[in-house]
Amino acid sequence: MPPTLTVDLNCDMGESFGAWTIGNDAALMPFITSANIACGFHAGDPAVMKQTVRLALRHKVAIGAHPGLPDLVGFGRRDIAISPEEAFDMTVYQLGALTAIVRAEGGQLHHLKPHGALYNMAATSAALAEALAEAVYKVQPELTLYGLANSELTKAGEKIGLKTAHEVFADRTYQASGTLTPRRQPDALITSADAAIAQVLRMVQEGQVHTQQGTNVAIRANTVCLHGDGAHALEFAERLHGALRQAGVVLQAGHLTVAK
Amino acid sequence: MPPTLTVDLNCDMGESFGAWTIGNDAALMPFITSANIACGFHAGDPAVMKQTVRLALRHKVAIGAHPGLPDLVGFGRRDIAISPEEAFDMTVYQLGALTAIVRAEGGQLHHLKPHGALYNMAATSAALAEALAEAVYKVQPELTLYGLANSELTKAGEKIGLKTAHEVFADRTYQASGTLTPRRQPDALITSADAAIAQVLRMVQEGQVHTQQGTNVAIRANTVCLHGDGAHALEFAERLHGALRQAGVVLQAGHLTVAK
Amino acid sequence: MPPTLTVDLNCDMGESFGAWTIGNDAALMPFITSANIACGFHAGDPAVMKQTVRLALRHKVAIGAHPGLPDLVGFGRRDIAISPEEAFDMTVYQLGALTAIVRAEGGQLHHLKPHGALYNMAATSAALAEALAEAVYKVQPELTLYGLANSELTKAGEKIGLKTAHEVFADRTYQASGTLTPRRQPDALITSADAAIAQVLRMVQEGQVHTQQGTNVAIRANTVCLHGDGAHALEFAERLHGALRQAGVVLQAGHLTVAK
Amino acid sequence: MPPTLTVDLNCDMGESFGAWTIGNDAALMPFITSANIACGFHAGDPAVMKQTVRLALRHKVAIGAHPGLPDLVGFGRRDIAISPEEAFDMTVYQLGALTAIVRAEGGQLHHLKPHGALYNMAATSAALAEALAEAVYKVQPELTLYGLANSELTKAGEKIGLKTAHEVFADRTYQASGTLTPRRQPDALITSADAAIAQVLRMVQEGQVHTQQGTNVAIRANTVCLHGDGAHALEFAERLHGALRQAGVVLQAGHLTVAK
Repeated sequence: MPPTLTVDLNCDMGESFGAWTIGNDAALMPFITSANIACGFHAGDPAVMKQTVRLALRHKVAIGAHPGLPDLVGFGRRDIAISPEEAFDMTVYQLGALTAIVRAEGGQLHHLKPHGALYNMAATSAALAEALAEAVYKVQPELTLYGLANSELTKAGEKIGLKTAHEVFADRTYQASGTLTPRRQPDALITSADAAIAQVLRMVQEGQVHTQQGTNVAIRANTVCLHGDGAHALEFAERLHGALRQAGVVLQAGHLTVAK
Repeated sequence: MPPTLTVDLNCDMGESFGAWTIGNDAALMPFITSANIACGFHAGDPAVMKQTVRLALRHKVAIGAHPGLPDLVGFGRRDIAISPEEAFDMTVYQLGALTAIVRAEGGQLHHLKPHGALYNMAATSAALAEALAEAVYKVQPELTLYGLANSELTKAGEKIGLKTAHEVFADRTYQASGTLTPRRQPDALITSADAAIAQVLRMVQEGQVHTQQGTNVAIRANTVCLHGDGAHALEFAERLHGALRQAGVVLQAGHLTVAK
Repeated sequence: MPPTLTVDLNCDMGESFGAWTIGNDAALMPFITSANIACGFHAGDPAVMKQTVRLALRHKVAIGAHPGLPDLVGFGRRDIAISPEEAFDMTVYQLGALTAIVRAEGGQLHHLKPHGALYNMAATSAALAEALAEAVYKVQPELTLYGLANSELTKAGEKIGLKTAHEVFADRTYQASGTLTPRRQPDALITSADAAIAQVLRMVQEGQVHTQQGTNVAIRANTVCLHGDGAHALEFAERLHGALRQAGVVLQAGHLTVAK
Repeated sequence: MPPTLTVDLNCDMGESFGAWTIGNDAALMPFITSANIACGFHAGDPAVMKQTVRLALRHKVAIGAHPGLPDLVGFGRRDIAISPEEAFDMTVYQLGALTAIVRAEGGQLHHLKPHGALYNMAATSAALAEALAEAVYKVQPELTLYGLANSELTKAGEKIGLKTAHEVFADRTYQASGTLTPRRQPDALITSADAAIAQVLRMVQEGQVHTQQGTNVAIRANTVCLHGDGAHALEFAERLHGALRQAGVVLQAGHLTVAK
């Protein structure tokens, strides 16, 4: 009997702020297994964080901290030339803030996934990646670190001894090197929902992804990133969720790779 | 043999921000027993918080969270008409942020004292006071809540079951009702260092304070607020520290009143 | 021949921020004659301000600065205990910022209307009202100051020599004193669109409003506040616009009361 | 008779914020001819801006806007990957804010010099430089644009038709290419005050600077950047001021290169 395949479906949540609402958190919760909750620097505020934690607890969805750069007006999407120490400090701060909110609600934090530009910078900068991994390790070494599959961030997490989750994308194409096709290239996105679902199934079931160069490369798909906004986000989440269950894949956070 | 008298000397610390410096934290640390560290809303940033935590740990000074209103330009000194729920949320958030920083440095949080307008509003509003006490209780019930002696805040802390520390002021005069003389009154401040020290000694040794009405009122003096800035802050801290030790008073945080 | 009646329909606009959108500015523009554009303190950012200015210019809608308290997470709706000088400073700053954006787009600023808690505080505090009026007067004395009808703000504007616009509300009830029924009272709101339109017509045509005490009081209705969000905001704007035009009322900003 | 040489001495000012003070503005004002006043994004707040404008007006020092990146905690010193349109928008906003404050005080704005990372990015990115030049040009084409000598920013200013001031540094060494020696190189700084003064005199009198490669290169020195903080800032300002006057150089803002 083959081993049961499992994968986690994660989505960025709690990205409203004050009087402003973004996303469709309540509708998406039933179709995901882990929620990355914004921590107030790029989005989210203490009230939004609490509401989102409550929502996740109600749906038994694993809760992760989703720290970002201090850039509310830019939604944390613009690179800021921060030092590794600044990355460490802002990650510890945001991680702690969400941890307290989760604790006040009687829950427990499960993971941390950096947001936007911080995620991207930590995928390629070893120094930033190590700072983030150290921040998690020093505060809550039991947490899982989510990062781009095969990136400096997952490498740093494994090196320091954290559980890590390699994240893959349903709607992005891959290069022979195992990296994402840069967004500026015309073939960066997979626009067909069927093709996106097929790519995820292949990554989960075969541990491989078909690349733009026509080859296959090995990829670890511990967790799939679902988008929370956009016209078809909800519909796609529902379809992917259904396709994976139909294929016998167990959807859950928490059974992730443990570093040696 | 009479019981040993103890008192805590606390001071607001870590109120620098980014490139801006306020206070004289390193010089004051030797003369205090607990440090209230700003948490980023009215002052402080993740880097300043970390440096201040390190400084406190080196001096074996008890560390407290010092959450404030989200008003950086006003240094948290202006009343903002927040709801109790907003007070709860912002307290949990800031408490968690500092807790994570303390943990990353291998330390442990000891107390929470709200800052400025939040402190003052919670001294008179039972609803805000209860929200703050509940925030501490739900996140870290082992912490001590610092509040103005005989205020709604200490009352709320005792009611929910927190250890509480009644805070007194060396340089403020008191009314027959046991409250501080409002700052707008000409006799609100004690400007003589000798008189200020005498007032503290009396509060600690006799549990009483002489009021502007000529009477004495009972006051619990668990902790004395020292100011961190001003021309004579350091000199006064040193003198008060010396006078209390000479009188045989044990200076320490942590042996505070436990609510039944 | 009776004199032509004119009134201005104003609406708060440009209250999006960064990645967050609020309101329905483009759809509402055809039905209003002046737009109050948020200036970055309670909502709005430089990019949103520019886009909203362009939209207003395209629709030939009069442009006003809509300064607020520095409280993004509270949307400027929470009272902050600012001094008159702080009110002056923040109004000058925000007024200048929008003026430059309007100038870069080839337009001209027409008025200023404070937002939310700043509007409400300036309606009842003569000191704050005078600070705001002075801010406008010292920077651009040709602007019109919008304020609650019969309030300290319109009084301060008239006193310093500004054109002022007395603002009335379609969906709020009035007291015999000429003030709005406080929101906490159950009869504060007019929920029937027909009744709201009838109230506006009466205020414009007869200069009177029917009060909750059963009497009529005189009211100057230079400008009517339309809401930009809510399910029926657009439909109500369209209906009120139509009803006023059908009644022969000229809809325009700019023909407002000049102080002696 | 040789033509009279003139040069401007500029200094960043108004970089305090709320309760925090930086710099020594009042002491430096007598030795400078133009003040670049922070506009609230990287430093400064409406009250600080007003006080600094008043100080400059009292000393008849030319007033410039000193817009920065929206990064208070980083003091505007960290690169943020903004688009040219974002650079345009934030420059217009900050320029307008200061303009209104200057107008309320009865003064007139003279120039604009971007701050920190925005200055550096606009020195090498033609797209950002053109956005900044356009922002000034569209709002107040009579202003002078200050930029690093021989940089993309002065080039963009000249191209669009603004008066531009080429800025030089007393305490930085230069390369044969006419650019500053990067700060990371050990020979980037001139630490001798005598040598720094000699370099300025040479740049002003001969239009040349001696480079680290041993050659001389032509440089336009319209304005010299003085630092506002540091232990010897005031003493150096006083000495440079004296040396230039003794050499017969007229110290003034405003007689700057006009683009054709």
